[in-house]
Amino acid sequence: MADTQKLNEESLQMHAANHGKLETRCKVPLENGHDLAIAYTPGVAAPCLKIKDDPKLSFEYTWRGNVVAVITDGTRVLGMGDIGAEAAMPVMEGKSVLYKKFGDIDSVPICIDTKDPDEFISIVEKLQPSFGGVNLEDISSPKCYQIEAELIKRCQIPIFHDDQHGTAIIACAAVLGALRFVKKDISSARCVVNGCGAAGSAIGKLLYRLGVKDLIMIDSKGALYKGRPGHMDMAKEYLAGVTNKNLYKGDLAGAVKGADVVIGVSKPGAITADMIRTMNDKPIVFALANPVPEISYEEAKAAGAAVAGTGRSDTPNQVNNVCVFPGVFRGALDVRSSAITEEMKVAAVHAIAGLIKDEELREDYVVAGAFDRRIVPEVAAAVAKVAMEQGIARIKRDPEDIKKEAAARIAKNWNA
Amino acid sequence: MADTQKLNEESLQMHAANHGKLETRCKVPLENGHDLAIAYTPGVAAPCLKIKDDPKLSFEYTWRGNVVAVITDGTRVLGMGDIGAEAAMPVMEGKSVLYKKFGDIDSVPICIDTKDPDEFISIVEKLQPSFGGVNLEDISSPKCYQIEAELIKRCQIPIFHDDQHGTAIIACAAVLGALRFVKKDISSARCVVNGCGAAGSAIGKLLYRLGVKDLIMIDSKGALYKGRPGHMDMAKEYLAGVTNKNLYKGDLAGAVKGADVVIGVSKPGAITADMIRTMNDKPIVFALANPVPEISYEEAKAAGAAVAGTGRSDTPNQVNNVCVFPGVFRGALDVRSSAITEEMKVAAVHAIAGLIKDEELREDYVVAGAFDRRIVPEVAAAVAKVAMEQGIARIKRDPEDIKKEAAARIAKNWNA
Repeated sequence: MADTQKLNEESLQMHAANHGKLETRCKVPLENGHDLAIAYTPGVAAPCLKIKDDPKLSFEYTWRGNVVAVITDGTRVLGMGDIGAEAAMPVMEGKSVLYKKFGDIDSVPICIDTKDPDEFISIVEKLQPSFGGVNLEDISSPKCYQIEAELIKRCQIPIFHDDQHGTAIIACAAVLGALRFVKKDISSARCVVNGCGAAGSAIGKLLYRLGVKDLIMIDSKGALYKGRPGHMDMAKEYLAGVTNKNLYKGDLAGAVKGADVVIGVSKPGAITADMIRTMNDKPIVFALANPVPEISYEEAKAAGAAVAGTGRSDTPNQVNNVCVFPGVFRGALDVRSSAITEEMKVAAVHAIAGLIKDEELREDYVVAGAFDRRIVPEVAAAVAKVAMEQGIARIKRDPEDIKKEAAARIAKNWNA
Repeated sequence: MADTQKLNEESLQMHAANHGKLETRCKVPLENGHDLAIAYTPGVAAPCLKIKDDPKLSFEYTWRGNVVAVITDGTRVLGMGDIGAEAAMPVMEGKSVLYKKFGDIDSVPICIDTKDPDEFISIVEKLQPSFGGVNLEDISSPKCYQIEAELIKRCQIPIFHDDQHGTAIIACAAVLGALRFVKKDISSARCVVNGCGAAGSAIGKLLYRLGVKDLIMIDSKGALYKGRPGHMDMAKEYLAGVTNKNLYKGDLAGAVKGADVVIGVSKPGAITADMIRTMNDKPIVFALANPVPEISYEEAKAAGAAVAGTGRSDTPNQVNNVCVFPGVFRGALDVRSSAITEEMKVAAVHAIAGLIKDEELREDYVVAGAFDRRIVPEVAAAVAKVAMEQGIARIKRDPEDIKKEAAARIAKNWNA
């Protein structure tokens, strides 16, 4: 706790001293009248008129093709809940600097002062000409599902709710690595996900898509199952239909008995050492509640977990979506994909998981770390390849070139 | 014309080669897990919670306090008219880089895909938590008046339609310099403004506020006068009421007879040499149509203009609003003014005009040039001082400190 307090103090000081973390810069010469005449009036009319004739050229002649907006309504910011649009800015700005640092993607943090999902959708739709893609962030569940689904319908640029898919992609990559390490097959592994908010539901959906056949999702009322009484949001409704074939109706403790994998996206204390002791041989435990996990890495290991991981950077096997969103958007932008499809998400999972060869796997190294600079180029190339195969890429490029270019772009953002 | 074509080619090449002009950058360290924990989770929660308790702190702990959004609907872009939101981006992006280069202000270009003024107003209002100020740009007249007036009412941050006020401020500063050069008094000078769009109307209003008593505004139907039949927009209605006391009902040619100053914000050819020859002794001619002025600098001088100027950088006495908006917002942001008032605009005029001492005035130097680095610090200090006097500044600072700090901030953005 003393450490937390110290970190908070450091963070406040850093934010106050620098007035935030992001800045804009001019990337062209602007030193004299001629430069001004090229970049601004009268010369700027030339690219304007080209874009007027063909709006797609805005991706060529402006920064749009490399810009992702990080957009929130401030209704579910980290673990703090509905703290409002102003108070969400430090997180959005943080995400924007991560886009630049890790993906060499320009990024604009936008906090919208409305809690009405329809108004939010309409505003983001109308902002479309300004950006190359939209990262939805920290929007409360279940309205985040409706907002994302509707925006995907209305927009011609990628819309990606990172709290769902970023977390799901890296969690699934970690699960794949852990299963390979313990030499279990995904198609026969029993997986339990505790928590059916935005992240938990997305993890469940992606595990299902990756081939997990025995999956139980747990929310505050217990297991999801087909026909469960009471209202379920659209994500739970879907998951209840495709998971839990045996209609298990109990709680987490019962679900994890004999399970191979348990993933917590819930709250501190939700997973206990006793639960882990009831799991199948070589249990895998990912406790992703942030900043305090469902069970600490050390406790999970002590209780017999063959592989454990958390969302924290101070324990092994960190599940951190900074491994995901920069690469996914790098790839989507590089081929000007109109969307980020389920197939592209699956490709991202395999790209990350594939970075660690079988012989390199260790109990404390089943997933690549946030600072592994191979991640973004690999993910970008994999995602772009699928976009091209699916016919939603507006330009065609060799995935190998994308990989090389991404590596070069990113290298220049690091001191060493 | 060959020159124009060459410039357009250069501009297209520059825009395509760089994919626009703007980029974002991270301004804090982000090299390791500790940096990440300070700038992002978990440390970022600390500034979030401070802002939640006091939303004004978003100006301290985030980049918001130094960010101006340049926002358009693309309905009147330069002289090109309604070219759409996408096609407006090169201009907005250009403006954003000018904010950074000239004012060290971070700036985000936003193109909103709606032509409905009410929807536009509502969207900008809801975007307020993201920005420290809003520069409205290239919105067609007369809806630009309604949009600006309504946003000023609804917002607690400065809203400034630069096509109106930026142009008016620098044009008026140039007129003040020219009148001093020819030793005429503003209170007895007869001024004629040809063009009553956003810029023309704003120039008329500001000349009136600066003490011009004999002012005639001309639109496509001739002079504005009280009781003129037919619809007039709100700006013209106001101007018809306070100008043209003698109810002159003729056209521009008649109005300029015996006039001391004529300002064109209309179209090429609108001001002729013959008209200038009918003006009072030592006539002053500002032909501001862009890129081709109402009459060329050389023709105006040949026709007897004591002082002439255009909006072009290749002739003397350029009237360029890049002298205005960076300094006005630098000052407003530095004291966290909630608005940019008429009095602050007047202060900006005098700050710019005051840069040239009487003995330095020449026929080809009545207004400071765009690259004069004294402008932004002077304007910022003058504008901030008035904001503090008017009680709309949220923090108090010594104007001399603002001047010094602005000079230092800006110096680092220039190579030499």
